Amino acid sequence: MMEEHTVYLFYDIEDDAIRNKIADTCKDYGLERIQFSGFCGILNKNRREEFFLKLTYLIKDKSGKLLMLPVCEKDAKAKREFIQKAEDDPASGK
Amino acid sequence: MMEEHTVYLFYDIEDDAIRNKIADTCKDYGLERIQFSGFCGILNKNRREEFFLKLTYLIKDKSGKLLMLPVCEKDAKAKREFIQKAEDDPASGK
Repeated sequence: MMEEHTVYLFYDIEDDAIRNKIADTCKDYGLERIQFSGFCGILNKNRREEFFLKLTYLIKDKSGKLLMLPVCEKDAKAKREFIQKAEDDPASGK
Repeated sequence: MMEEHTVYLFYDIEDDAIRNKIADTCKDYGLERIQFSGFCGILNKNRREEFFLKLTYLIKDKSGKLLMLPVCEKDAKAKREFIQKAEDDPASGK
């Protein structure tokens, strides 16, 4: 079986419809939203390449940026994450 | 000399002032903007930890998300990037 890797996908897409399709495709591939424009999940190399190709097709001739980062187990362990939800922050309801 | 790694930093920050400070701090550490809320650069482990701590201090008690991903050379080579600027896309001027 092909080795699976943690994969991060971050995007900058101005067009709302395309951005929503990108997010839906991430979910279709089992990735979970970790930031407003960032998803993370586990994919093997074939699925990863297929996934990335689909995303580029969605953008067609529009402006957009995609970054897919496969990370090995060692790198995944070295990641640092900070998540804070302030109760008195109006933004926390979003 | 301590080994240097490619480091990615992605953030979700609602507060404009804090978001700008986060971006400025990324630039202070030599990182370059690769997406609206994403930077990339080269840092050794000490600088990386110091950098991440500074970013968390900037958020204080507000809502926010930070993700710092150090990636090894092998992972850096496996990354996939797509950048397209459509001439007829009004978003391309942004």
